[in-house]
Amino acid sequence: MERILEKQRLEAFSDGVIAIIITIMVLELKPPHEASFSALAQLAPVFFSYVLSFAYIAIYWNNHHHLLQAASHVTGRVLWANVHLLFWLSLIPFASAWMAENHFAGATVAVYGAALLAPAIAYFILSRMLLKTHGPESTLARAIGADVKGKISVLLYLLAIGLTFIDPRLSLAIYVLVALKWLAPDPRIERVLTEKRRSERQR
Amino acid sequence: MERILEKQRLEAFSDGVIAIIITIMVLELKPPHEASFSALAQLAPVFFSYVLSFAYIAIYWNNHHHLLQAASHVTGRVLWANVHLLFWLSLIPFASAWMAENHFAGATVAVYGAALLAPAIAYFILSRMLLKTHGPESTLARAIGADVKGKISVLLYLLAIGLTFIDPRLSLAIYVLVALKWLAPDPRIERVLTEKRRSERQR
Amino acid sequence: MERILEKQRLEAFSDGVIAIIITIMVLELKPPHEASFSALAQLAPVFFSYVLSFAYIAIYWNNHHHLLQAASHVTGRVLWANVHLLFWLSLIPFASAWMAENHFAGATVAVYGAALLAPAIAYFILSRMLLKTHGPESTLARAIGADVKGKISVLLYLLAIGLTFIDPRLSLAIYVLVALKWLAPDPRIERVLTEKRRSERQR
Amino acid sequence: MERILEKQRLEAFSDGVIAIIITIMVLELKPPHEASFSALAQLAPVFFSYVLSFAYIAIYWNNHHHLLQAASHVTGRVLWANVHLLFWLSLIPFASAWMAENHFAGATVAVYGAALLAPAIAYFILSRMLLKTHGPESTLARAIGADVKGKISVLLYLLAIGLTFIDPRLSLAIYVLVALKWLAPDPRIERVLTEKRRSERQR
Repeated sequence: MERILEKQRLEAFSDGVIAIIITIMVLELKPPHEASFSALAQLAPVFFSYVLSFAYIAIYWNNHHHLLQAASHVTGRVLWANVHLLFWLSLIPFASAWMAENHFAGATVAVYGAALLAPAIAYFILSRMLLKTHGPESTLARAIGADVKGKISVLLYLLAIGLTFIDPRLSLAIYVLVALKWLAPDPRIERVLTEKRRSERQR
Repeated sequence: MERILEKQRLEAFSDGVIAIIITIMVLELKPPHEASFSALAQLAPVFFSYVLSFAYIAIYWNNHHHLLQAASHVTGRVLWANVHLLFWLSLIPFASAWMAENHFAGATVAVYGAALLAPAIAYFILSRMLLKTHGPESTLARAIGADVKGKISVLLYLLAIGLTFIDPRLSLAIYVLVALKWLAPDPRIERVLTEKRRSERQR
Repeated sequence: MERILEKQRLEAFSDGVIAIIITIMVLELKPPHEASFSALAQLAPVFFSYVLSFAYIAIYWNNHHHLLQAASHVTGRVLWANVHLLFWLSLIPFASAWMAENHFAGATVAVYGAALLAPAIAYFILSRMLLKTHGPESTLARAIGADVKGKISVLLYLLAIGLTFIDPRLSLAIYVLVALKWLAPDPRIERVLTEKRRSERQR
Repeated sequence: MERILEKQRLEAFSDGVIAIIITIMVLELKPPHEASFSALAQLAPVFFSYVLSFAYIAIYWNNHHHLLQAASHVTGRVLWANVHLLFWLSLIPFASAWMAENHFAGATVAVYGAALLAPAIAYFILSRMLLKTHGPESTLARAIGADVKGKISVLLYLLAIGLTFIDPRLSLAIYVLVALKWLAPDPRIERVLTEKRRSERQR
């Protein structure tokens, strides 16, 4: 019971922080002073940036949800690895706003890429910390697997940051593609969790 | 146990996001620089807009609460359908502020209607996703029923958007009426949930 | 189980909204542009206003916590009475900021009093709604009792609003006194809850 | 069950408030209007201030988490001691922003020290309130121990506030050192909690 509570409080705090991060971004979407559709249309870059960042933070919430669900307990190091992830996630609204305000200028798109890269690395650290205390035979280990998607994403962020010096639109296309790849349901995690539930019922 | 926890975390995250959305709207209610009742009276449109949007978001929280309560489990697709709903809800404060700041000009009232229409559709998608995995005999299916109120609301939002070209006040009247209809207690859902509880106790 | 979950989600949503209301008020405490203690001292009215409003919202959270703890179940009407309370609480930051910005001018102190009066009435409605479904012999009924403190508070808010026309400082003194009265531990509620726990253990 | 729920709601509310405090600080990190890396570099003081304050609030969340986990029940006085802690924590974003905006001028660094000192004292009061109702043989008492680290931190904050009159950089160095000391895992608390779990399993 104690261990489940501890995990639950970690999840609750993370949910709180992620919920605030995903919501305060909408404050960047400042209502135009003019009451026309054309005034609204000028918000398009801010809106695109909001949608993209909303999707990324939702993806992190979703992955975090699955990761912690597969975990059976948390340690002190996991608490800090989790706070470390939340720190980097908290910078996405800033990078998103800067990029939108400057109409996707190279430097801002590169920094946005860095703002996506940092939580990806932090998430990797968090999953390693969890793995260390769960062992290679755990549900968690099977749910994480080789984490090919996570590793490819890191490479793609790096590529996108490099491409900002050629054409930032290429970088944006990569950010969108990576987000779409993550939004597609991941059959592996769902399968592992379904198996876990089944075996629990059989006991 | 695992399944209840998973549902609970979805609820917790949704509660967090909805709580933030409903609360940050009050930031639009900027205190006037003058200390007079007439200065306060000038805030009337912003206040009306706040009350209306607060009511709508509270209605969504209430319906979401009942929907999830009737559900016994959630899937990966349900998680995304839920995030999709939260995305559209997050735009209501923006639409509300734009409408209030421009004293309910036609375009802004139409966009506000769209901002009410989008989460209505997203809510419909979420309930269908849940239905798919619960079956037509489930408590959930009975709690949702034919969802006549939801479907009529969608039609009324569309009508209201069209009416902004004639007189935006007609549209506002429709938004108020739909909100009042939802605020009235729904005997059906309460009855189904009461039955569910009764049958659980009898087991 | 179902009923406890339902009550828990009501509490969770309320906690979220109240936590945001209590915290966004600090955004009014804008850092002065000068790095001197005298610049800081000029924030005194905003700070006083923040402390007072923080105390009031904390008192509501505390009372809400005790009220819901004593309740065994919630109904659809209770959900709405609760949202109604949250609505009025959400206006306290606005009234607080307006009052502070205008250095406690009469009209602003009167409106602040109204902003304290409204949630007091909403809280009364919420407790009546809960009482209706729990019966006069319930733990809840005994925990609420005759609610003398609640009724006296309402009278004092009304008195304070009237006194703003004579001297707003008298009104402020009343707001402070009422808050102090509520901050003092209430032996009645603690006793009833302790008895409840004891009798539960004996079963 | 009742007691665990009560403790859980205290934790949930605290998590909510701390999550908001830690996240709204990022709003101070305003995106520069220019799309250049040099414009970004000018945010260095704000960023440093953000990282430091984020770390401190995360440390408080972590300690609060461990403290409440070791507690078996809460009283009315504990609820208020907790709200008192949250109040002082809520001022950290203000002190942090003022310090960053004024490039770490003496007065601002001293006030930041006071903003760290106040929650340290509030945390001490909270732990004493909890100790009073748990007794010297409780898991809680062993988890808190002599709290040498807490007491040294208070002395260091006082020293740092004094040093702002000589060189604020010395004070900042102390703030960073204290944070690093807290970020390092504390073997004592983890050991006590592990023992508690082991003894619970043996029963």
